[in-house]
Amino acid sequence: MQYSIGIDIGGTNSVMGIVDKMGQILAEYTLSTQQYPDINDFISACFDVLNPDILRLGFESFKGIGIGAPNGNYFNGSIEFAPNLIWKGVIPLAALFQQKFQLDTTVTNDANAAAMGEMMHGAAKGMNDFIMVTLGTGVGSGFVANGKMIYGHDGFAGELGHVIAVREGRSCGCGRNGCLETYASATGIVRTAYEFLGNSMSESVLRKSEHIISKDIFDAAEQGDEMALAIFDFTGKILGQSLADAIAITSPEAIVLFGGLARAGKYIFEPTKKYMEENLLKIYQNKVKLLHSELRESDAAILGASSLVWI
Amino acid sequence: MQYSIGIDIGGTNSVMGIVDKMGQILAEYTLSTQQYPDINDFISACFDVLNPDILRLGFESFKGIGIGAPNGNYFNGSIEFAPNLIWKGVIPLAALFQQKFQLDTTVTNDANAAAMGEMMHGAAKGMNDFIMVTLGTGVGSGFVANGKMIYGHDGFAGELGHVIAVREGRSCGCGRNGCLETYASATGIVRTAYEFLGNSMSESVLRKSEHIISKDIFDAAEQGDEMALAIFDFTGKILGQSLADAIAITSPEAIVLFGGLARAGKYIFEPTKKYMEENLLKIYQNKVKLLHSELRESDAAILGASSLVWI
Repeated sequence: MQYSIGIDIGGTNSVMGIVDKMGQILAEYTLSTQQYPDINDFISACFDVLNPDILRLGFESFKGIGIGAPNGNYFNGSIEFAPNLIWKGVIPLAALFQQKFQLDTTVTNDANAAAMGEMMHGAAKGMNDFIMVTLGTGVGSGFVANGKMIYGHDGFAGELGHVIAVREGRSCGCGRNGCLETYASATGIVRTAYEFLGNSMSESVLRKSEHIISKDIFDAAEQGDEMALAIFDFTGKILGQSLADAIAITSPEAIVLFGGLARAGKYIFEPTKKYMEENLLKIYQNKVKLLHSELRESDAAILGASSLVWI
Repeated sequence: MQYSIGIDIGGTNSVMGIVDKMGQILAEYTLSTQQYPDINDFISACFDVLNPDILRLGFESFKGIGIGAPNGNYFNGSIEFAPNLIWKGVIPLAALFQQKFQLDTTVTNDANAAAMGEMMHGAAKGMNDFIMVTLGTGVGSGFVANGKMIYGHDGFAGELGHVIAVREGRSCGCGRNGCLETYASATGIVRTAYEFLGNSMSESVLRKSEHIISKDIFDAAEQGDEMALAIFDFTGKILGQSLADAIAITSPEAIVLFGGLARAGKYIFEPTKKYMEENLLKIYQNKVKLLHSELRESDAAILGASSLVWI
């Protein structure tokens, strides 16, 4: 059996594991990213954690390391100016891991890694053309066409979270206005909740929350709260409109949704699907599947990163 | 030397020619498409026109036929419900040509063919990631990523003309509202002219036209007409905004503009570039070239179609 190592680097924690080609995770570890202000210390810590498994299973049977990281660039293997990471500037991640582990190392951003994982082991298995959308704190995406990840000329393709969903809309962390992620993310839906609470006078259980989080909106929807349902409808509208525009560009077989907001299930899927179809050019209508990720949320990051080794 | 046949089917006329691999057009013919209500008669007419050249140069040296046609589908070689063509329903174009000529035949839509031509012989030579945008009566587009045309799951990818540039905007022939082509096409800019003439009271030479065509707006701009310049600025703004969103998806090396509106040169390029940059996420700024097609307009259709044979 051949093995790969999948590492998902996050601002707070990093998870890593040993994965076989069938997608079985044989071992899994978590490190606190923030504990390692020096990238070399972080890599040494990864090595200390993973090396016993590598030796046990046999170094020769390891095909490589795949890393998903914020602002990870596939072409040069570096992390470039990632705002949520403790390491600043340009970090030549692939080169550093390769040197330490003596294994081929591939880097990409987390949403692209998620797309690879979904293509290899999840909802997009066997698909050549699909869009992966991660609805977390922000919105990430990975576009696959002709069976290949679209990295673009500079390795930074697939920023669906930063298409302008609403012209002159909400201010975004990127310095512009109206980006999709200011609406269709876990933080975006909370902003919508505050907007709705401010604009309307209707009753809502959300008025009782001191500090609304996205889960509260889901819980309220579960109780049939009208305002919570309207908040999901609005969020699905913005997301569905943007997905319809993306479909006009790559005409995918499916769009796979993943992440915190996707966990709201029908509350987000139904309006998104409805408005997506309403906004599609006729030739695309009723063709594009809107799917939920099929990877366990806890496994997805490691599986996605490890898939980079095989694809 | 090997040869290919390039055919561009238009609603009014169809042009066809014999092309060598270097992009030299050795012979060129035009047929009136509308004179052939029966597709079989059209194909016979093409055969009668082209066959003498095929025999003269030697059947064996012909590698195939490439056809660019409205609503042409690369996967099944058919034209499907093309509103501007005399042949209705689904026409199995590739199969019919192949049968008559005994040559492999590939079909795609005209904008994709233009992209192939630009990649093989024009402004996108050697590029793996670029976007072709044709600004004619409508707006067409072809997206190339990883060196390959994005056809999408169903062969209909690349409808940038039908992304929604302005929500609740102008009504479009497709039945929806605010599509890019209702603003950034030769017809779209005329609609903008009428809107500006209606909304403002400023003087303009355009007020003298009985029936404005896009060339009038260019001529007025050439004379320094303020309103004409404002019309181009507005058009470039809408186009630049939509291009910025497209860049966030495929991160191309360049965007190549072609067609009637692109002929307005600096009047359309300058505002488009300006608003495109203004609307780009920082990581894409000052990276993406905005280029004019390098193919002679009269040759582009035949060259584009013939490129399908080689790529």
